[in-house]
Amino acid sequence: MGSQQAKDTSGYKAWLALHARADEAQRKREAARYDWLAACEQHDTIAAAVSELRNGIRSILGQELREIDPNRIEQGIVIGTFDGNERIRALCGDASEQLGAEGFAIRASEGLMAIGANTPSGVLYGVFHLLRLLALGELTENLSVMERPANGLRMINQWDNIDGSIERGYAGQSIFYANDAIAFQPERVRDYARLLASVGLNAIAINNVNVHRLESGFITEPLLSRIAELAAIFRVYGIRLYLSVNFASPIEVGGLPTADPLAQDVRLWWKERADDIYRAIPDFGGFLVKADSENRPGPFTYGRNHADGANMLAEALAPYGGLVIWRCFVYDCKQDWRDRTTDRARAAYDHFMPLDGTFHPNVLLQIKNGPMDFQVREPVSPLFGAMERTNQLIEFQITQEYTGQQRHLCYLVPQWKAVLDFETFACHEGAPVKRIVDGTVFGRPYGGFAAVSNIGCDENWTGHPLAQANLYGYGRLAWNPELSAETIAAEWAAQAIGPDPQAVDTICTMLLESLDIYESYTAPLGVGWMVNPEHHYGPNVDGYEYDKWGTYHFADRYGIGVDRTVASGTGYAGQYIGDNAKAFESLDRCPDELLLFFHHVPYTHKLQSGVTVIQHIYNTHFDGAERAGELARKWQSLRHLMPDGLYLAAEARLLEQAEHAKEWRDRINTYFYRKSGIADAWGRTIY
Amino acid sequence: MGSQQAKDTSGYKAWLALHARADEAQRKREAARYDWLAACEQHDTIAAAVSELRNGIRSILGQELREIDPNRIEQGIVIGTFDGNERIRALCGDASEQLGAEGFAIRASEGLMAIGANTPSGVLYGVFHLLRLLALGELTENLSVMERPANGLRMINQWDNIDGSIERGYAGQSIFYANDAIAFQPERVRDYARLLASVGLNAIAINNVNVHRLESGFITEPLLSRIAELAAIFRVYGIRLYLSVNFASPIEVGGLPTADPLAQDVRLWWKERADDIYRAIPDFGGFLVKADSENRPGPFTYGRNHADGANMLAEALAPYGGLVIWRCFVYDCKQDWRDRTTDRARAAYDHFMPLDGTFHPNVLLQIKNGPMDFQVREPVSPLFGAMERTNQLIEFQITQEYTGQQRHLCYLVPQWKAVLDFETFACHEGAPVKRIVDGTVFGRPYGGFAAVSNIGCDENWTGHPLAQANLYGYGRLAWNPELSAETIAAEWAAQAIGPDPQAVDTICTMLLESLDIYESYTAPLGVGWMVNPEHHYGPNVDGYEYDKWGTYHFADRYGIGVDRTVASGTGYAGQYIGDNAKAFESLDRCPDELLLFFHHVPYTHKLQSGVTVIQHIYNTHFDGAERAGELARKWQSLRHLMPDGLYLAAEARLLEQAEHAKEWRDRINTYFYRKSGIADAWGRTIY
Repeated sequence: MGSQQAKDTSGYKAWLALHARADEAQRKREAARYDWLAACEQHDTIAAAVSELRNGIRSILGQELREIDPNRIEQGIVIGTFDGNERIRALCGDASEQLGAEGFAIRASEGLMAIGANTPSGVLYGVFHLLRLLALGELTENLSVMERPANGLRMINQWDNIDGSIERGYAGQSIFYANDAIAFQPERVRDYARLLASVGLNAIAINNVNVHRLESGFITEPLLSRIAELAAIFRVYGIRLYLSVNFASPIEVGGLPTADPLAQDVRLWWKERADDIYRAIPDFGGFLVKADSENRPGPFTYGRNHADGANMLAEALAPYGGLVIWRCFVYDCKQDWRDRTTDRARAAYDHFMPLDGTFHPNVLLQIKNGPMDFQVREPVSPLFGAMERTNQLIEFQITQEYTGQQRHLCYLVPQWKAVLDFETFACHEGAPVKRIVDGTVFGRPYGGFAAVSNIGCDENWTGHPLAQANLYGYGRLAWNPELSAETIAAEWAAQAIGPDPQAVDTICTMLLESLDIYESYTAPLGVGWMVNPEHHYGPNVDGYEYDKWGTYHFADRYGIGVDRTVASGTGYAGQYIGDNAKAFESLDRCPDELLLFFHHVPYTHKLQSGVTVIQHIYNTHFDGAERAGELARKWQSLRHLMPDGLYLAAEARLLEQAEHAKEWRDRINTYFYRKSGIADAWGRTIY
Repeated sequence: MGSQQAKDTSGYKAWLALHARADEAQRKREAARYDWLAACEQHDTIAAAVSELRNGIRSILGQELREIDPNRIEQGIVIGTFDGNERIRALCGDASEQLGAEGFAIRASEGLMAIGANTPSGVLYGVFHLLRLLALGELTENLSVMERPANGLRMINQWDNIDGSIERGYAGQSIFYANDAIAFQPERVRDYARLLASVGLNAIAINNVNVHRLESGFITEPLLSRIAELAAIFRVYGIRLYLSVNFASPIEVGGLPTADPLAQDVRLWWKERADDIYRAIPDFGGFLVKADSENRPGPFTYGRNHADGANMLAEALAPYGGLVIWRCFVYDCKQDWRDRTTDRARAAYDHFMPLDGTFHPNVLLQIKNGPMDFQVREPVSPLFGAMERTNQLIEFQITQEYTGQQRHLCYLVPQWKAVLDFETFACHEGAPVKRIVDGTVFGRPYGGFAAVSNIGCDENWTGHPLAQANLYGYGRLAWNPELSAETIAAEWAAQAIGPDPQAVDTICTMLLESLDIYESYTAPLGVGWMVNPEHHYGPNVDGYEYDKWGTYHFADRYGIGVDRTVASGTGYAGQYIGDNAKAFESLDRCPDELLLFFHHVPYTHKLQSGVTVIQHIYNTHFDGAERAGELARKWQSLRHLMPDGLYLAAEARLLEQAEHAKEWRDRINTYFYRKSGIADAWGRTIY
């Protein structure tokens, strides 16, 4: 990792640490196979792939690859595209048609390892795949792999601001901006691009979706040239750059009197901006837009709808193949808490469902995984499966806004897996969310994943070293949603921390139970929002209860929960299809973990698990806090296996979590005990 | 007001507006009496008094005073000190012995009005008194007045920071500082000094008691010279300047390794600072100190007590007659909410009572009016009456931190009156708080009032124009605690708004009911702290319930309140003397308005008023919100009597209050309804 070589005990290299093979015999055996490397194409991305391979083989096997012409190589590694490298075409060109633009094939036989693809990006992905197998000790002699990503768009959203701050960032300041300027170390940005590419991500929106004054100028000079420099770094790693744009830019940047999407001068203005942008960045990805949401401007100002707004931008970008990614996070953020008829959970569906089929082909709707906002537990957004004629992108949040802010351990892959595997009943053959967003169920041309990044300028990228596993897992899932949470955890741990089995086992256990632990001591039974307002860290049961944000639990002395049934509530359950609607509507069939999201029940209501709601609250909070303490003890058992930097950074956070989990436990238990008057069945201390 | 003449519709002149006499016949009659002015002394303060008289007579009566030698004057006004003006000595020198340093005598006879005093400050106070009588139309032909202030120290505390912000300021930025520099318009500061002197205030601590890094340097050059410039402005108006100091200054400013109050080099360092300060400001008042409180440094760091700390500073100042004002706002601000044995209310007494008699003679303890922190309702601090051998200063908060932040109308004089009239039972003859703090009960050499200012750079000084009445009232009470809240309100309204009887009546009514209204919809029965954390604006019943600040109500489904009895609670009630301790201890005798401060009772507990606690909560909240709406309507009835600037500034705030009062009503009623399950007896809407 270039200039960062000296810092490898801090976690800076993350899952590209490429630990040296400990078993000397095995190392020698493998090293003997990798002494020659052949790659003939003059392309920055191929060069990057070569560089990764050289570094990787050196780092893991202590072997220095020597270059040789592909047509002369007999033992070693040959990489390239089918078009650009004859030898590759001969070795695995038959796979070409099945690989698409980004897939790769790896074939090993008779001492020769070939990595072939249709594009340089595919070659790079193949190289990272090979290195992963090597690092994990899974490289077999007669390897034959073909992979292509399940999703076309695999995107990262940076919520970075030009002042250097990151909205919901918990790992230091931005690596892109500082002091109201675009300011970055190219090495650091390149290393970020390498991390993203190594897990198959291919798109990045480089600024916060809340686009403030200065950032509105990113689409014009002089800032556009600086953005183009960032695009050039990412381009090498197959990652297209996108910009979040301010819908009011025609006014704020262009000096027009309106931003009405149907006004001719506004449309022209955006077309001119597209011309400028593509001159500077020929492979520019497109625009990400948060409009008419949380006080952001949007088409509503002009009596237009979201399709009018998105299509105008789409028209400007279409000649260049650019995309418009339009966020569906639209709701009334000035709600009256006294009004029980308005339901924020309904908002995305109510706003966008009527527009299905009216968006241009190069528009994608970016839909948060759940109907609220990245709570530890929510149902899946009912828009998935409902919109048949609209490109969709599912949005996850890697940064842990509501899940412990990288001070608590919370491995989110199991949550995302549950969302992706959720059956929508959108068609008879089965339509899990993952098949909606990848475009296969409704044959959509575009689809994929987006997620809010969790990195900042902290040396280890994510503050909590173990939070790297979320970024890693997100990329891996975007490539292949069939990977299990266990596989991903083990992959990350072995690559980032080292292959020691005790360490890998312990860390996998910690990661895999962490989501359940966090949910246990924070948000029982699908209730969310019991957090401190604004910063969202720490317990506050009524923190959002009497506020304008539409996020309530309605706890009183008898019970708790939001009635979202069709029969007696807000009707939200009816936004689902078929049996989902029936199950959520039914008090008996609604899954325990979502009960309070869909139903208002007495504290004495008996769950499917057999305990009452109130006893469940007490049990999970006592257990969760206890288990949070165990997480820290498990980590401490690995002390001897860790370098100081990495170990201590995680230990400090795990100890804070253990203490803070007790605060969660006591506040929530006390709140509900004071309200319900029902004592814990086991007589544990409640204040 | 000099350069501000053009701004007189904004409220800038406040109670020194000196409205022109409307009745022309009366004006002519009075003007005829004031055509000559005699003042022979060369003294800045006398000159200021002359200037006030000239402006005042001109403004009210349209008359230009002509100057004449005191020995030749036969009709008009003669002012001066008994020592400096022979004619004054002849006219009222017999009063000299009864007036002390700051009192004045006014004698009118045979067309001559004489204002005499022992000092120029006394003369100035006399002039302001005369102008007040003139403005109020109360100047009689045979006037004979003798006044002297009840309290020696009548102080204002500015919580201004050098960055220009004001801690708990609600009327704009500081008039003393900006952008990390001492930066002020001399005219504005002078006008502030005039306002303070006109109500008899004689001391100002010019910076926040939380002394940050840059402000710690106020006691050394180069900043000290700038502070001296401020002192010079205030000096003209009889106001001594004080500085809040950082107890850790020897370390932070002096570069010493310790701030231990018993260390010789520390003591020497402070003495050298005193030498420097008195060279720059010969009449410097002294130091105000917040130590060992809310994370401020203090003697505890070195295992010393507060007397050690205060006495060290007192020793440094004593040679110059300077005072140390040591705040008693000391408590554990990192309390565990789960611990019910620690009681913040006890803290000041527990910390300071054992030190009674150990402070040097030039130390005063500054004690907040109540044991907590300026809530709308608290009992009186039990330190008053308990400490017999210590100088005391009572601290009020004019700035409305917990009483609506100058967006709600809350005339605080009735609250202060109740505190001052509270009988402590400290001696047989009767010992109300006002007689403790003025020093008479225990024969203390120093005593008086301090209060946190409510002014900022807003054109009308206080944001809410009617909030001026609090600053006015504070000064008037500090001079004479026997004045009634009604008198003070009427004085302020007639002087600041104008003498129209409808306006004065309506505004008096609004002012006098405002405290009760605010208490009604915010804090029932002595419960405080049901506010949003940190900024303290707006309702949040559990805002401080699970926090570290020691401020809890312990509401559960059965009841609410803090048991502070000796019998079963924290014992706080036992800190009072005699019948106060008994009354607060007793569930039957404790006044309704403090019931929940001293007792935890069921919601169904019947108050002395005959209604239950829960019904009282509902009643006061419905009534309070209703009455808040009426305040706005009353103001609107005065539309035709007001200039735009003043009228609209108040109207906007009164309308916000009316709306916000409903939010208070609904949140608090809903909270307690959800918790208690008891419906409103009158069936009004609770959510």
